Amino acid sequence: MNELEIIDYIRGLVPNGRRLLTDDVAFVRGGVAYKVDMLVRSTDVPPGMSYYQIGRKAFISVLSDFTAKGVRPRFALLSLGIPRDMDDAEIKQTLEGVLSAASGHGAQVVGGDVNEAKDLVIDVILVGRYRRAVKRGGMKCGDLVFATGNFGLTSIGLDHLLNGAAVKEPLLDLALKEVYEPEPPLSFGIRAVEAGYLNASMDSSDGLAMTLNELALQSGKRIELTALPVSNNIIMMMEENGRDVVKDVFFGGEEYQVVLSASEDKRDKLVKLAKDEGVVLHEIGRVSCGPPGVYLSYKGKTVEIPRAGWVHLS
Amino acid sequence: MNELEIIDYIRGLVPNGRRLLTDDVAFVRGGVAYKVDMLVRSTDVPPGMSYYQIGRKAFISVLSDFTAKGVRPRFALLSLGIPRDMDDAEIKQTLEGVLSAASGHGAQVVGGDVNEAKDLVIDVILVGRYRRAVKRGGMKCGDLVFATGNFGLTSIGLDHLLNGAAVKEPLLDLALKEVYEPEPPLSFGIRAVEAGYLNASMDSSDGLAMTLNELALQSGKRIELTALPVSNNIIMMMEENGRDVVKDVFFGGEEYQVVLSASEDKRDKLVKLAKDEGVVLHEIGRVSCGPPGVYLSYKGKTVEIPRAGWVHLS
Repeated sequence: MNELEIIDYIRGLVPNGRRLLTDDVAFVRGGVAYKVDMLVRSTDVPPGMSYYQIGRKAFISVLSDFTAKGVRPRFALLSLGIPRDMDDAEIKQTLEGVLSAASGHGAQVVGGDVNEAKDLVIDVILVGRYRRAVKRGGMKCGDLVFATGNFGLTSIGLDHLLNGAAVKEPLLDLALKEVYEPEPPLSFGIRAVEAGYLNASMDSSDGLAMTLNELALQSGKRIELTALPVSNNIIMMMEENGRDVVKDVFFGGEEYQVVLSASEDKRDKLVKLAKDEGVVLHEIGRVSCGPPGVYLSYKGKTVEIPRAGWVHLS
Repeated sequence: MNELEIIDYIRGLVPNGRRLLTDDVAFVRGGVAYKVDMLVRSTDVPPGMSYYQIGRKAFISVLSDFTAKGVRPRFALLSLGIPRDMDDAEIKQTLEGVLSAASGHGAQVVGGDVNEAKDLVIDVILVGRYRRAVKRGGMKCGDLVFATGNFGLTSIGLDHLLNGAAVKEPLLDLALKEVYEPEPPLSFGIRAVEAGYLNASMDSSDGLAMTLNELALQSGKRIELTALPVSNNIIMMMEENGRDVVKDVFFGGEEYQVVLSASEDKRDKLVKLAKDEGVVLHEIGRVSCGPPGVYLSYKGKTVEIPRAGWVHLS
């Protein structure tokens, strides 16, 4: 069984699991939301990442879901599996990475568990308060679609680190910063949700194609993209480096950003809020009333963007 | 760094960590309590345990802390690391073990995370409601000390499974049942705490000696034991099997039971509650106003019970 099959099996066993276990965070009555995310060294840590960055990433992964849902962090629990190969300095740096990210984002650590394990495992549990529960399935016909951040950089960084792909400066620097020190736009997410600007939103860390398809499927809508969520100067750098831009942007993953939809009358407010918060915000398309699917019109051609894999425009 | 050193380092880094991170569960304002416990296959699973029992044990480990603190389970999150060596049937049995234990104890699973890892890791997070926060440090001079269940059986079961120690029936059966299918006295714990019978309590899964010493230390009191928390017929079986009874009882661990103190006027009420709930309850000693420590008077001798290790009475 792969991870998706295991999740589906769990949904079938849990009472109301098919309805409840579908979103980025668990919203329960009383305005409390929960999220857990496990970082595993053997699968989630790229080469060259420091232990401080590893600890920090474990926290950021779960914070990213709170960001997309506009949930304010309050409490964290920390559950660790520590392998024998780690020395004291590495353990301490890992802990400092997790704990400084927690306190820096308003989460009080109230409990945890420490164990020996064969793999380094950092499980971070976040508890927070929400005022509005924004779901994946809330897209409305005519909504505009936005994404924060610049997509594709992590894909390029990982291709360099894992496969030795040659990438020139300054693109390499930008790419490695995204891989090693991701930073979800928490304050933007909270303010956008609490102000009621969003109809739907989702954390993008499983990749843009997966995220857009999940939003389209759960909303029962068609998403028509007319732009990529990447600044023009970065697209130029990607092309100069001979990258397949569409593949990097849609099928990379590990971008801890927010993909959202909002009605057209919220456009100016969102743009202003992003500017206030220093967040890069790209308007990338529109929602239409059609069978679920994601389509991209780019450089004069229209292609369907599948959940996973990649597409070639030429 | 060992696990205790890592926990101590975390306490030092977390704001108010030395005060907050000291008890079985995290009590936060508003009557909500949290607990996380990670089961790791390579260290927490004895030989011969089925995957269903492994999944169940992962839930029981965290439930045990709620039991000792009288917290009613409400929500659970489930974070998994699954190694490639597990086949579909093993994964499904594991999930069924965790999830049936959750639903059987009133915990609605509201979220989770699934990952690949080198070790089987099952991290269970429980959220519950409490009416009274009973701490480890609440023992009063003159309190009676009680423990639920029969201690020493898991030590004998594990000695048999791990070291091949010969154990005769029916003791072997009793011991293996405790190892494979522990069951904390949840309803007893909730009723005893909510009725206000307890001054202090703690889950005993790290071993009776560790548990009593922790209670004594945090309460600043001396515990004087005059009996073992084991039924007489089981002590007889242990002696017939040539076991070192005091060592098995105090220095085994993995008993998911409750060690508690209560004022003398609560004795009859506790005994009646235990009878109502079908729970074995042993009165084992008394709290006195002295420097922290744990002493056992048994078979005409008095010995100090250290946090860990073992003592010989002869």
